[in-house]
Amino acid sequence: MISNEVQSILLHDKGKELIIPSENVANLNCNNNLYHALLVLSQVKYSSIPVLDNESRIRGLISMPMIIKAIMSIDSIHFEEMEKITVKEVMNKNVPIIYTSSELEEILNKLIDHNFLCVIDEQGYFIGIITRKEMLSRVNHLVHEMHNQYDLNDKSLTKIN
Amino acid sequence: MISNEVQSILLHDKGKELIIPSENVANLNCNNNLYHALLVLSQVKYSSIPVLDNESRIRGLISMPMIIKAIMSIDSIHFEEMEKITVKEVMNKNVPIIYTSSELEEILNKLIDHNFLCVIDEQGYFIGIITRKEMLSRVNHLVHEMHNQYDLNDKSLTKIN
Repeated sequence: MISNEVQSILLHDKGKELIIPSENVANLNCNNNLYHALLVLSQVKYSSIPVLDNESRIRGLISMPMIIKAIMSIDSIHFEEMEKITVKEVMNKNVPIIYTSSELEEILNKLIDHNFLCVIDEQGYFIGIITRKEMLSRVNHLVHEMHNQYDLNDKSLTKIN
Repeated sequence: MISNEVQSILLHDKGKELIIPSENVANLNCNNNLYHALLVLSQVKYSSIPVLDNESRIRGLISMPMIIKAIMSIDSIHFEEMEKITVKEVMNKNVPIIYTSSELEEILNKLIDHNFLCVIDEQGYFIGIITRKEMLSRVNHLVHEMHNQYDLNDKSLTKIN
C-alpha cells in the first residue's frame, strides 16, 4: 500500500501531467529499415524509442545497440546490411506497458527496470510515455515535502506509549 | 532538507551499497577509436559509459548517438571514418559527478537529469556509479515503508488544533 499523501504528490505534482503525450515522443514504424532507424535514434534524447504499426498500436522498442548487434558478425560490423533489414525484425517486442488506469504501485515498480513506460488505452493504441526523469523529479519534491509538511510518527513507537 | 528517516531508507536500504563499484562498470579509454567504442557499447546495458584516462580518472561519457553523429554528413553516415577518430574527440566532457561525501539532496537532484552519476574521490579517481535504477528501487521501498511504518501528521493541521 502507498499512502494517499504520497500518491497525491507523485501523481498530481504541480498540476503537470505525468504522461508525455505520444505526439511529443519520437517513434518508428515496423517497416522502416535499420538505416532510417539509426538516423532517427541519433537525433533523439532517448536511447530507445517506440515502434508502432500502421494503426498506431505499439509493437516494440528499438535502440542503437539492437541495430548494431543485428549487423555484427564475430569480428566486424556489416553496415551495408542496414538497408535490407526492417525494424520489426530487430526490435524488442517485450515492451513495458501500463494503462491509463494503472496504479502508482505498478508504475513505480516497472520504472525500476525501464527508462520509460509506454502508456496504452484499452484498444492498444499508444497514448504516451511515463519517464524515470519525471518520476524522479516528483520524488525529489516528495522527500522535501515530507520534511516540510509532515511529522513522521513511528507506528511501532506510538503503540508502546 | 530531507528527514533522517527518509535518508536512512534511501541511502542504507537493506545494507546494500548504493554505489556500483568501478570494476563492475564497463568503460573506455580516451584513446580508443570509435569502432572499438561501438563494439563495447553494443555489448553493455547502459546507453552511455565512462571514458577514463590512463590514470583511471574520469574524462567524459560516450554513447552510440555521439559516435553516429560524429560520422554523419547531411545525407549519409560515413562508417569508414570510425577507425580514424578517437573517443576523446567525440565524448561529452560534461560528466555528472558526485563525491563519496556528497549529500542525498545533491544525488537525487542530479539523478533527475542523468541515468547514472559518476562517483569520484578527492583526487578525481573513478570510484563507481550511482544509477537511477537502484535509487528507484529504494524509492519503491520508501513509499511502502512510509505507509507501513509511519503516520503522516500534517504540520499545519497540528498547529491549528
